[in-house]
Amino acid sequence: MDLSPPRGFETSEFQDRTRRAQQAMEAQGCAALLVMTEPEVRYFSGFQTLFWQSPTRPWFLIIPASGAPIAVIPEIGADLMRRTWITDIRTWAAPAPEDDGVSLLAEALKPLAQSRERLGVMMGHETHLRMPLGDWQRLLARLPGLRLEDTTKCIQGLRMVKSPAEQDKLRHICSIGSHSFARVPEILAEGMPLDAAFRSFRREGLAQGADDVPYLVGGAETGGYSDVISPPTARPLSRGDVLMLDTGMVWDGYFCDFDRNWSIGPPSAEVQHVHHALWEATDAGIAAARPGKTARDVFQAIANVLTKAGATGNDIGRMGHGLGMQLTEQPSLAAFDDTELSENMVLTIEPSLSYGAGQMMVHEENLIVTANGPERLSTRAPLDIPVI
Amino acid sequence: MDLSPPRGFETSEFQDRTRRAQQAMEAQGCAALLVMTEPEVRYFSGFQTLFWQSPTRPWFLIIPASGAPIAVIPEIGADLMRRTWITDIRTWAAPAPEDDGVSLLAEALKPLAQSRERLGVMMGHETHLRMPLGDWQRLLARLPGLRLEDTTKCIQGLRMVKSPAEQDKLRHICSIGSHSFARVPEILAEGMPLDAAFRSFRREGLAQGADDVPYLVGGAETGGYSDVISPPTARPLSRGDVLMLDTGMVWDGYFCDFDRNWSIGPPSAEVQHVHHALWEATDAGIAAARPGKTARDVFQAIANVLTKAGATGNDIGRMGHGLGMQLTEQPSLAAFDDTELSENMVLTIEPSLSYGAGQMMVHEENLIVTANGPERLSTRAPLDIPVI
Repeated sequence: MDLSPPRGFETSEFQDRTRRAQQAMEAQGCAALLVMTEPEVRYFSGFQTLFWQSPTRPWFLIIPASGAPIAVIPEIGADLMRRTWITDIRTWAAPAPEDDGVSLLAEALKPLAQSRERLGVMMGHETHLRMPLGDWQRLLARLPGLRLEDTTKCIQGLRMVKSPAEQDKLRHICSIGSHSFARVPEILAEGMPLDAAFRSFRREGLAQGADDVPYLVGGAETGGYSDVISPPTARPLSRGDVLMLDTGMVWDGYFCDFDRNWSIGPPSAEVQHVHHALWEATDAGIAAARPGKTARDVFQAIANVLTKAGATGNDIGRMGHGLGMQLTEQPSLAAFDDTELSENMVLTIEPSLSYGAGQMMVHEENLIVTANGPERLSTRAPLDIPVI
Repeated sequence: MDLSPPRGFETSEFQDRTRRAQQAMEAQGCAALLVMTEPEVRYFSGFQTLFWQSPTRPWFLIIPASGAPIAVIPEIGADLMRRTWITDIRTWAAPAPEDDGVSLLAEALKPLAQSRERLGVMMGHETHLRMPLGDWQRLLARLPGLRLEDTTKCIQGLRMVKSPAEQDKLRHICSIGSHSFARVPEILAEGMPLDAAFRSFRREGLAQGADDVPYLVGGAETGGYSDVISPPTARPLSRGDVLMLDTGMVWDGYFCDFDRNWSIGPPSAEVQHVHHALWEATDAGIAAARPGKTARDVFQAIANVLTKAGATGNDIGRMGHGLGMQLTEQPSLAAFDDTELSENMVLTIEPSLSYGAGQMMVHEENLIVTANGPERLSTRAPLDIPVI
């Protein structure tokens, strides 16, 4: 029995996203938006391909004040784009270093420049310019009169709130992640090199139904790990290690992002204490994730528990974040982020605690913010650190 | 018996890369380079992490006129960066939307601006600005007098030529790719949904020793596939299909990138003819890949064979590319690219042919350019399309 939700979205979903973007544009005084990063192009068009992994070709979507977006893309993507709801597809034979879409874009945006209107572009936190800076400058030089407006908040604001269909995809991939973590004591064992353990876990995620397991970091060292972003070494899992795996698996373009800890052999009292403290901090974060609270409130709820447990600060700068089409999205559960939570946001709750001689431990769960309290997407980690 | 080459590089490799960059900088009149994209930061520092998958944090490396690079990075990466050869590591508690490294960067680059020197930045073909455009503008505003120079060609030029240690990694991952493709007739079968076939192939790649299989595209349709960048559907492999898988597997941060075709049941005469033509075009490309020839020469050698076979043009715009730390790198085997090939460049030879009613077929092999002729990294595909 296949319990997977349907792949893709109804056209009405893209129409709705576009309509909401157009309302926000109008409020901001923009005549059009230009997006060029993978999640944004996919969000408005449904265009999904791994071809973005090649840095060679830029891809653009223009969202006009009304009607469907216009795709300005390399010819190699035309066939796939035609299968989306987009009908105005303008292509060039990329790569073409001398003019990689710049003329096509300039032509499409010329009316805006001539009437001195505003073009919304994402220029803020967590955004990138996914085209050559030189081409961007050439484009602007060909559009005198065009005014740019930073539309980061507008688009991030839309993407933060997930539709029912998006939630179904997120439920599905988080369930795959939970099932994969549940299998760890069966597929990993003392003596296995950490890099082999990573491979086994990736294979398990695929066997459980993930399309891919693009993100997998972690560590295993005696009494605790010291960083959480390293690739694995070939050091065998050894008695006394704390093992952590943190994974972003993907299904139909939607991510889970959570982690789990294990003790190889019985844990020390200190490790158990830290695990308990993080579990309770996670609980406090989950409980605080309610509509009307801010991202900062959730951060503070987590931090309060950690402080009571003796935390002396950490250097991660946040205790969770949004989740969806990307491994990490807005908002940040951090002291600087006053984003108000609303129903249907999807969050990771991710406290961390430093202890011992440079060791740290992290916990992470995924949830949907609902009016009736948080809906957990990841199967809750046990209070006691599990033993392998 | 583990035949893997060692992971990582000797410090001398990074010293050498940096020294060569500094020579090129001097020739171009630059007092420093600023890089911020994953492959470039890794190329000069050895800093390797999947954390780049999160769009949240920017990472910077400054290469001064002499001496080792300076890292300007989020605090969460400091531990890992300290394990590289970099010693001057300047960190901030990211994310910090109000000042995500901008002050630290401005401080480091101030002396250049004050003496009105040139800073090399990658602004050209195949590059991106991996930081918010708004932050980039704020940085420049704080550095009056700074002159920018496009350093794309310089850095791409260095990266195109692979060291012996890089070649070992590429041999290894291409061998893993070849072994994985060889297993396809055993792990895939008629009736298997294409998305399940993709999962099986990814699992096989991991079992063969890949760290990950981040790139896998392909298709399977009756008599031929019509695009080469789509995610898989759940349609079962059916008698009469042509199946293509194109994969980028990774080992220690280095990629293979090649594809294979299969016929599900006996192929039609047309499919066999097209497979033969592509095989011969690939052969011509391999034979042409010699020091002193240009990327355009190789393209032309391939195109000549395809034209004789009745090709009516294709929309991909190139017939292969460089390979290394990225799935696709410079140069492009294309009519527009007059890069002269030199020893120790690593290339994909990738002809494609359109036929029938909108169908296409692609072939791809990987090789090292040597003085004694090309060294094939991928096990050569058979002349006849293999049958499943």
